[in-house]
Amino acid sequence: MTAGPANAGEGPLAIICGGGALPFAVADAVMRRGRSVVLFPVRGWVDPKAVAGYPHHFIDIGRLGRFHRQATAAGCRELVMIGTVLRPALRDIHFDWGALRELPTVIRMFRGGDNHLLSILARLFEKRGFRFVGAHEVAPEILMPQGTLGRREPSVRDRADIARGAALLSALGPFDVGQAAVVADNYVLAIEAAEGTDRMLARIGELRSEGRVRSAVGTGVLVKTPKPAQDRRFDLPAIGPATVASAARAGLAGIAVTANAAIVAEPAEVGAAADRAGIFVTGIGPDEREP
Amino acid sequence: MTAGPANAGEGPLAIICGGGALPFAVADAVMRRGRSVVLFPVRGWVDPKAVAGYPHHFIDIGRLGRFHRQATAAGCRELVMIGTVLRPALRDIHFDWGALRELPTVIRMFRGGDNHLLSILARLFEKRGFRFVGAHEVAPEILMPQGTLGRREPSVRDRADIARGAALLSALGPFDVGQAAVVADNYVLAIEAAEGTDRMLARIGELRSEGRVRSAVGTGVLVKTPKPAQDRRFDLPAIGPATVASAARAGLAGIAVTANAAIVAEPAEVGAAADRAGIFVTGIGPDEREP
Repeated sequence: MTAGPANAGEGPLAIICGGGALPFAVADAVMRRGRSVVLFPVRGWVDPKAVAGYPHHFIDIGRLGRFHRQATAAGCRELVMIGTVLRPALRDIHFDWGALRELPTVIRMFRGGDNHLLSILARLFEKRGFRFVGAHEVAPEILMPQGTLGRREPSVRDRADIARGAALLSALGPFDVGQAAVVADNYVLAIEAAEGTDRMLARIGELRSEGRVRSAVGTGVLVKTPKPAQDRRFDLPAIGPATVASAARAGLAGIAVTANAAIVAEPAEVGAAADRAGIFVTGIGPDEREP
Repeated sequence: MTAGPANAGEGPLAIICGGGALPFAVADAVMRRGRSVVLFPVRGWVDPKAVAGYPHHFIDIGRLGRFHRQATAAGCRELVMIGTVLRPALRDIHFDWGALRELPTVIRMFRGGDNHLLSILARLFEKRGFRFVGAHEVAPEILMPQGTLGRREPSVRDRADIARGAALLSALGPFDVGQAAVVADNYVLAIEAAEGTDRMLARIGELRSEGRVRSAVGTGVLVKTPKPAQDRRFDLPAIGPATVASAARAGLAGIAVTANAAIVAEPAEVGAAADRAGIFVTGIGPDEREP
């Protein structure tokens, strides 16, 4: 564990920010613990107004040398990377000299899944003396707890669907793909790959309205787990009130995510949203999958 | 093998027909071998004009007793089931007494994947003295051959994507789901579940236009394999000219299907369509997956 004021001696925490509410939840939690932060929002992904209240420097993917100079000048030695950033195409990136010197490594990053990409990125930063830490290490309060966030509990049938989904995601582990699937009444309706969770859930609703998903509304569970091979420092699955809304629109009974291995930026809001929608949101143990 | 005129003594072959061109390709191939056929098109899924030239009786899902009487009267003892039929909802089916007597079994059919459903259906028919045979057993010419159908061949990179896709589908085998995936430059873009192959391919194009799939046009392979647990008598993957068109629209390099374990109703048309679209269509061996 690197959390808590004991780490304040390591200087301010650099937070490389993608889109969404998570980077700010992490920044606020770290500051509450008495450590200062410097935000490095990725240009194009973060609203300038949202970062205005924090010390920050906008960064561009591919400008490794410039980031290095800015982070060093700010006294940062530890980095957190959090929020959504779509995988850019190699041809769309403008590299500075700091990155060009690492080009063979950078090109290797772009072959393979996201997990692979992030591991290599971490090694690049570590060669330059930075240390990557997980958002959950510096702000453990953002982790999904065990049990339900709202009032609803999964039924026996839901628990069977959760177990099947978790086993399926575990089998997909070696392929650096999909951290989410939808299982309804023991039938696998959808598996997430490049489309992301929201789009996968939207598909369930469309298939239902076309008669291609025939399980009753109020049946089925969105299951999200970390990939077995995942480096938890920068790629934990995340849920928020928007995930609850999407699951409810898809007609599901609820959402199950691995406890202590998924991020919930706003647990109170998620619980309230789940109660309003009449679905459950539960944190499951690592062993809640079918044998 | 049950193919060839030697089987003519077993009476006409009953072909339970879903939608698409495949049932007619099978019927024609069986007749060319000197065996007569009786088509049992599922009402709502088959165009009455398309079956008009064949001896046929329309059937309704759930009317097991009536089908039994008609097939027996026609002298059929062997059944083939082929073509697309969406999984109906239990509540939408009108059961006759023949089916109602089997209701506990029928209800069990509707819990779990399609493969499970079809296995139980086969047992129901077999209890009544019918024998299910695979379309590929009575018409082996509809099976995908090894090698390419058109002029294009997969590149070294395509072969790596094929191997990864095949390994992924193999890992999904125990879950009675997805017989198809798209892999581009070692990255898994999509995995098929309830949405079907065409819709999965349409998603690639949409994600590409939204910048969520960044691999170059002309990269990536649609891989289709039979599920390891699959009963090949009634659930082989199938490709046709429409699959080629969808893969080309998705910007893929080609299509790879397991040789001798996938159905191609119109191989010449598929090869010509692949050449026009500039993509490859290849039949792969069972071992062409990454170790």
